[in-house]
Amino acid sequence: MGALNTLPQAKTNYAAEPDDFHWHGWSAQETQWRIERLLGRYVECIDDDALEQWPDFFVADQCRYEIITRENTERGMPLALMLCTSHGMLIDRVVSLRQANIYPQRWFRHVLSNVVIHEVSADTLNVHSNYVVFQTRRNGQTDIFSAGKYVDRIVMADGALKFAEKRVLVDTHRVDTLLVTPL
Amino acid sequence: MGALNTLPQAKTNYAAEPDDFHWHGWSAQETQWRIERLLGRYVECIDDDALEQWPDFFVADQCRYEIITRENTERGMPLALMLCTSHGMLIDRVVSLRQANIYPQRWFRHVLSNVVIHEVSADTLNVHSNYVVFQTRRNGQTDIFSAGKYVDRIVMADGALKFAEKRVLVDTHRVDTLLVTPL
Amino acid sequence: MGALNTLPQAKTNYAAEPDDFHWHGWSAQETQWRIERLLGRYVECIDDDALEQWPDFFVADQCRYEIITRENTERGMPLALMLCTSHGMLIDRVVSLRQANIYPQRWFRHVLSNVVIHEVSADTLNVHSNYVVFQTRRNGQTDIFSAGKYVDRIVMADGALKFAEKRVLVDTHRVDTLLVTPL
Repeated sequence: MGALNTLPQAKTNYAAEPDDFHWHGWSAQETQWRIERLLGRYVECIDDDALEQWPDFFVADQCRYEIITRENTERGMPLALMLCTSHGMLIDRVVSLRQANIYPQRWFRHVLSNVVIHEVSADTLNVHSNYVVFQTRRNGQTDIFSAGKYVDRIVMADGALKFAEKRVLVDTHRVDTLLVTPL
Repeated sequence: MGALNTLPQAKTNYAAEPDDFHWHGWSAQETQWRIERLLGRYVECIDDDALEQWPDFFVADQCRYEIITRENTERGMPLALMLCTSHGMLIDRVVSLRQANIYPQRWFRHVLSNVVIHEVSADTLNVHSNYVVFQTRRNGQTDIFSAGKYVDRIVMADGALKFAEKRVLVDTHRVDTLLVTPL
Repeated sequence: MGALNTLPQAKTNYAAEPDDFHWHGWSAQETQWRIERLLGRYVECIDDDALEQWPDFFVADQCRYEIITRENTERGMPLALMLCTSHGMLIDRVVSLRQANIYPQRWFRHVLSNVVIHEVSADTLNVHSNYVVFQTRRNGQTDIFSAGKYVDRIVMADGALKFAEKRVLVDTHRVDTLLVTPL
């Protein structure tokens, strides 16, 4: 868990045949579909600015949400741009965002792809995916806000898929705005 | 239908467990695959500049294709940048495009993700997805042409999946070029 | 094979119903999932800079990897920006890249979508997909590096899916950097 100084490629055999695992009674294929659906809803929640529902994607106990630069990850420096280690901290984050809305209005639009299930244990799926977030400002101009990688630990909690841990490894440094917005 | 002044988030429970619906004899998982395949072919048709086939993705009767700014949607102002309310209007649009090709040549490249099936009725699937269109001009430079969201009503017509309604909610304002190009 | 002067749209009926084919004992749906998993791992291998594993995605005998501009493809000019016609050439390419690393460090991030299986023969799947690669330089700025289309011939080799041919049709011209980096 955490393992900030371990790079994915150290243990990954990228070109290996996909495992035909089963998880919670689902085939690998069905698991893939359900994971993608979870990620699709997660992203739409943020893009629709329905942030009050954002914490619901995480387990109630001992969840972890973290935004960290790829540079720091590769150097083993565990300094996060955003770190929430409880459900309450996720909720506080949204409340702060709504209260301290001093930034010019913008819209976000996520594109997500390359959802790869890497490790499967009885409890947990380790899932990687690439994301790019585009922002459109009030003047109608769209640009790249953040590109990076989600490294997620996903579990079943009360019959639903939830994030036990979501680590956002950002390629892009835009510390000013990253500090306040969930990705 | 239409419901231009209703935002998706008003009725959506983003973090809810996916429904295990059936539709036309397909499981939810198979429906998802078929929808994604429809969208993949739709996008490739445009990117390959095979626009003469573009109207074939829509039902023959009473289809609706609309490009509208997100800003107008959220304000409940139903002013569209492009509006076609019949199959003939879709065909006319392509003919006009081919005849009035006064714009510098460019290529489009769609990236599409987050395909989420939101509502299922006996007839219709309500499907949301995120898109970003990149354009490459003759000088070889690529930039962001349009980012936004597809809000689709998809039906079965003569044994094939077709769009009954496709609403393109654009974040990006580029009225000059948006007016002539399908997204 | 190759068929550089044949455009996809010449033979494609984009809006046609998807074929319910079977391939190597898999349903069309399962084949789609396995192809997307292959592509997801391929892209992650590059983005994680694990290039030493990159050749493993190709068949050992008579593979072909090619980067070509869309412009040249549409004109039937088969001049490639990069061309490898054997497994050894793929390995050489990676060795050269590691030795001649004179470029400023950057990270790549692929987004891949619209994976469409077009032709199915006993041996081979013909698969198209759209990609956009973003690069982030050391200063933390992210921009578009390359947009284009993968045109892949995929086969089963020793029980695993491999690329027999991967043609990268780039919209973006950035010859300086394209010459050294796999896409």
